[in-house]
Amino acid sequence: MSALASKAAENLKKIRSDKPLIHNITNFVVMNTTANVLLACGASPVMAHADNEVEEMVDLAGALVLNIGTLTDAWVITMIKAGRRASSQGKPIVLDPVGAGVSALRTNAARAILFQTWVSVVRGNPSEILSLSGQDGAGKGVDATRTVADAADEAGRLARELGTTLALTGATDLVTDGRRALLVEGGHALMPLVTGTGCSASALVGAFLSVDNDPLTAAATALAYFGVAGEIAGARATGPGAFAVHLLDALYCLTPEELEARCRILPG
Amino acid sequence: MSALASKAAENLKKIRSDKPLIHNITNFVVMNTTANVLLACGASPVMAHADNEVEEMVDLAGALVLNIGTLTDAWVITMIKAGRRASSQGKPIVLDPVGAGVSALRTNAARAILFQTWVSVVRGNPSEILSLSGQDGAGKGVDATRTVADAADEAGRLARELGTTLALTGATDLVTDGRRALLVEGGHALMPLVTGTGCSASALVGAFLSVDNDPLTAAATALAYFGVAGEIAGARATGPGAFAVHLLDALYCLTPEELEARCRILPG
Amino acid sequence: MSALASKAAENLKKIRSDKPLIHNITNFVVMNTTANVLLACGASPVMAHADNEVEEMVDLAGALVLNIGTLTDAWVITMIKAGRRASSQGKPIVLDPVGAGVSALRTNAARAILFQTWVSVVRGNPSEILSLSGQDGAGKGVDATRTVADAADEAGRLARELGTTLALTGATDLVTDGRRALLVEGGHALMPLVTGTGCSASALVGAFLSVDNDPLTAAATALAYFGVAGEIAGARATGPGAFAVHLLDALYCLTPEELEARCRILPG
Repeated sequence: MSALASKAAENLKKIRSDKPLIHNITNFVVMNTTANVLLACGASPVMAHADNEVEEMVDLAGALVLNIGTLTDAWVITMIKAGRRASSQGKPIVLDPVGAGVSALRTNAARAILFQTWVSVVRGNPSEILSLSGQDGAGKGVDATRTVADAADEAGRLARELGTTLALTGATDLVTDGRRALLVEGGHALMPLVTGTGCSASALVGAFLSVDNDPLTAAATALAYFGVAGEIAGARATGPGAFAVHLLDALYCLTPEELEARCRILPG
Repeated sequence: MSALASKAAENLKKIRSDKPLIHNITNFVVMNTTANVLLACGASPVMAHADNEVEEMVDLAGALVLNIGTLTDAWVITMIKAGRRASSQGKPIVLDPVGAGVSALRTNAARAILFQTWVSVVRGNPSEILSLSGQDGAGKGVDATRTVADAADEAGRLARELGTTLALTGATDLVTDGRRALLVEGGHALMPLVTGTGCSASALVGAFLSVDNDPLTAAATALAYFGVAGEIAGARATGPGAFAVHLLDALYCLTPEELEARCRILPG
Repeated sequence: MSALASKAAENLKKIRSDKPLIHNITNFVVMNTTANVLLACGASPVMAHADNEVEEMVDLAGALVLNIGTLTDAWVITMIKAGRRASSQGKPIVLDPVGAGVSALRTNAARAILFQTWVSVVRGNPSEILSLSGQDGAGKGVDATRTVADAADEAGRLARELGTTLALTGATDLVTDGRRALLVEGGHALMPLVTGTGCSASALVGAFLSVDNDPLTAAATALAYFGVAGEIAGARATGPGAFAVHLLDALYCLTPEELEARCRILPG
C-alpha cells in the first residue's frame, strides 16, 4: 500500500501548489470550520449559496461540496442547480448527507441530489450513508450508531446501486466504489466530540478530488491526511476545545513526507 | 444545599449516559459554539430550522432550545411550530430571548413564543428577561446592564405572571419559578467577552431539562455546571480566545464528582 | 507619524470606555469571529439582518458594517435599507466587498451599496477593491492576488471617483481617501490562512469609525491595532488554529500604550 501513501503525499503537494478553489454549499454550523480546514490544507475555500451566483462559482471551482446540514427546500434546489453545472463540466462533487435517515427532508434531499447530479463521493457516517439505500439507518441525530465493519458488504452493494463512491467514516474509515474497497486508519476519539469534523472530512475529499481523478484514491488519501492530523491533534489535546485548535495546526504543519510515512490505507 | 450539588452531579451523569438529542433553533452566530458545548457536556445536538422538518426533529428530541438572535419573521413562525409540537408532547422548551427589549421584533418574538408554547425555562440576562414584562429593560445591544440582585423581586413576579421559570444570568445567576428561587455562583469575568456564552448556557439548560423534570433544579444545576467550568477555564486563560478553548475542555473534563464538590447553589 | 500612533491609542481607549454598539450585517462564515473580535477590542457587537429590524438597530448603533460574503439578493436589499438609515443619520458605514470581482452578484452588490448609501470606508483586498472600478481585479476566490504597492495609484483615483476612503489590506495595508494616503505595517503570514481575518479588520474599522470622525485615520489606526495584535499572535502561534486563539487574546490584552509604542503608520 506504499503506492497509496505516495499518492496521498502527491495529492497534498498538488493542493498546496495549485490552491484549488473549493466551492462549498454547506450548513451554518460548520461554515467557519470548513473554510479554516480547507485553508489549513492549502486549498482556497468559497462559500456561496445564492441561486443567481452558484453556477458562476462552479465555473471557477475545482470541486463542489454539498452538505445538507441545516437544510431548507430552497437550499436543496440551489445545490441541485450547482451540482448540475458541475456535472455538465465533469467537475467532481462531494455530497455530505448530514442527518440522512433521521428526517424525511434530509433523506429525500440527499437522494434528490444523488439522482439529479453526478456525485463523485458521498462522505458520511455509516447510518447516514446506508439510509440512502432505503435501509433503516437507525441513526439518532447526526451521530454514527453503526460501525464501519458492520456496514462493509451493504456499502459495496449500495455503491454499485448508486454508481458512486462511498466514504463511510468512523474509528476506521471505509471507501468503496463497489468494485474496490479501502480501509483508512487514523483519527482520535475526540474527533466526533467536535462539531463539523465529518463535514471537514467531506470538504477535504473535495480538495483531493480536485487534484486526483480517481474518487476512490482521492477520498482515501483525503481521509488518511485527516486521520493523521487527528492523531497528532489528539496526542496534544486536553479536551475537544484544544483538539479543534491542534487539528487545524496539524493539518497546516503536516508535510507530504510525514503524511507518506504515517498514513495507513489498507485493502478493504 | 448539598442536595442540589448531588442533583447537579446526577443530572450530568444522566446526560453522559443517555446522550439526549437536543434540538436547537438558534442564531447563526452561535450555532457552532452551541453544538460544541452540548457535545462537551455529553448531549447530542441537532440544528434544524426547516419548516417541513422541525416537527420530526422535535419528535426525536429530549428538549427544544429556541434562541432569537439573528431573527427573522420566518424563523419565529418555525420556532412556534416546533414549540407547539414540543408542548403537545410535554417536552421541555428553553427560550433564549437574545436582545429582547432592544428591538420591537425581538421583544415581540419572545412574547409570541412565550404565549403560544409551553416554555419551561427562559434563560437570558436581566435586561432581556425583564423586558418581557413590559418593564423597560434599558438594554444596550445584547449585554446585561442590570444586575441580578437588582432584578430579583421583579423576576419573581414575572415568573408568576408568565407561568414559567426564569434564569437570569450575570456575575451571580438567579433562577426563580415565582415560588422558589435559587442563586448560582461561579463563572468568570471573561465569560461575557466571548460571544455565545449566554446561548451556550441556554443550550445546557435544555440538556439538563431533558433529564430533570423540575425546571428550577434543571436550570440551576445546568448553570452551576457551566459556572464551575467557567471558573476552571478562567484560571487557565490568557484572554477570551484561550478562555473559549479552555471552557470546552473544562465542560468535557469535569466529572460529576468534581461538579458536586465545587458547585455553589444557594437559596435565593 | 507619532501623532497617528497617539491617535491609535486614543481611539482604542475611547472604544474601551464607550463600548460602542457596532451593527453588523455580515456573512455566515465569520459572524462568530467578528463578534468575538469586536468584544476583544472593547466594542459591543450586534448581528441583525431582519428587514423589519435593521433600521431600529442602526438607530442604536455607533457604526454599521456591511459584508457581502454568502450573499443573496434579499440580504443586499436589507443592507441598502440599513445603509440608507445610517446615511441619513450621518452614521459611519464600512463596506467589505468580499469576493467582488469574482461573481457578477458580488460586484454588482458592492456597487449598489456604494451608490445608494454613504460608505465611509471600503475595506478589502486589492483585487476586491479594484474590481469596484470596473478594472479587472483578476481575483481568484476571495484571496488577494495583487499587492498593495501594485495598486496604490489606481486606488487613489478610485477613492476620488467613488468619493470614499479605501483600505486595501495585504502584507502592508494602504489607506487612501484620494488626497491623503497612509501605509500600515504589521500582521503576520498566518493571517490570510484564518478565514474571516479580513472581515474582522472591517469590523474593527467600524469600531474605530464610531469614535473617530476622520475615515482615513480611523481606518489606519484600526488596521494598525489589528496588525500589532497579529504580530503578537504570530510570534506565539504553532499554526492557524493557535493563531486565531492568540489573535483574540492579543486584541484583548493590547493596551493603548503598547499600541502607541508598536504601531507603524507611514505616509503613503
